[in-house]
Amino acid sequence: MKHFTISELQAWDRFKRANFVNSLSGFRPVSLIATINHQGVSNLGVFSNIVHLGADPALIAFVNRPREAAPHTIRNIEALGMYTINHIHPAFVEKAHQCSAKYPDGVNEFEAVGLTPDYKEEFRIPYVAESMVQLGMELSEIIPMRNGTFLVIGSLIHAYVAEAAIGADGFINLAQTDSLVSLGLDAYYQASPLQRYTYAKPDKSPDIIPF
Amino acid sequence: MKHFTISELQAWDRFKRANFVNSLSGFRPVSLIATINHQGVSNLGVFSNIVHLGADPALIAFVNRPREAAPHTIRNIEALGMYTINHIHPAFVEKAHQCSAKYPDGVNEFEAVGLTPDYKEEFRIPYVAESMVQLGMELSEIIPMRNGTFLVIGSLIHAYVAEAAIGADGFINLAQTDSLVSLGLDAYYQASPLQRYTYAKPDKSPDIIPF
Repeated sequence: MKHFTISELQAWDRFKRANFVNSLSGFRPVSLIATINHQGVSNLGVFSNIVHLGADPALIAFVNRPREAAPHTIRNIEALGMYTINHIHPAFVEKAHQCSAKYPDGVNEFEAVGLTPDYKEEFRIPYVAESMVQLGMELSEIIPMRNGTFLVIGSLIHAYVAEAAIGADGFINLAQTDSLVSLGLDAYYQASPLQRYTYAKPDKSPDIIPF
Repeated sequence: MKHFTISELQAWDRFKRANFVNSLSGFRPVSLIATINHQGVSNLGVFSNIVHLGADPALIAFVNRPREAAPHTIRNIEALGMYTINHIHPAFVEKAHQCSAKYPDGVNEFEAVGLTPDYKEEFRIPYVAESMVQLGMELSEIIPMRNGTFLVIGSLIHAYVAEAAIGADGFINLAQTDSLVSLGLDAYYQASPLQRYTYAKPDKSPDIIPF
């Protein structure tokens, strides 16, 4: 194993350091977040720093980079208080990645990259029609972080999930929807099941739950 | 696709709802976080809500559940201001999962589950010797969330990484270390490379970067 200290890493050029440090925290969930602006124009962005905050109430948070780097999604969420989170699958991974380009304000990324907005009756913001896991979210709170990023916390309002992936116990085997993970700034991976275990207890080894 | 509203989900029993909602945010990075208490006894816990907050300064955050559910890691970090994050690999996934059992205060999970503490010269907290990506972290800030969880933000101080996985551009192909991802409360998956793309620009399609 090679040892790197933070002072060594700080001497690297910023692209190499960004690649390295972004990889260290591990594989990440990756989704397209859709919003609409005041003029009704849709926006799509790729977000990979997404965390589950709680199941009851059902809260999911994501990190929005500083405003100067990523202004549109956070501004639209602040204005309308609603957004959608849409898993990414291999069939449209290149289009999804293309949503990370810095399009000018007012460009509709659905049109720019060739994805389909899916407006459903119950919600004002479009989902990504190509996505097999679509979440309708309501803004709960935005927490500014010291480093200029924002933790955007949302309450789950609607979930649309490919039914075959949902088990009797509520677990969703996302290998069946082929929901991607990302790594670093620009890499996408597929996940395959290794093992599922029963709730761990101090006095015994866990049993295996079949997928 | 099946539609679920939040009011439907709230009527489910809490285990089914927890399985379902925990799966919705997607696959997650999963690591063992090691701490030591005031008596010098080590503690290991499994954490899967980990986010990269920034590359410069290098900040990684994780979500600690409410104190009554997960008291030891956060208390030890508050007391000593240091901890390690260690990726999980297939060879010890069952032992890692077993670290999620609620052992009484003062039990050393390294011993209880059979993992090896790796004390290195530069840092007071042990790493997990079996892990191929080990991070030495210093506490930066703990932000209490409204739902009782805590966002624990740490500065990266040391990184130990299996050298073969590191590319010339700093990217770490974590399929080579076989770093696992988790899903829901209890499932572990392996990731395999799908595609890596160049930085997206509005006026052209991204090119492919070989892994």
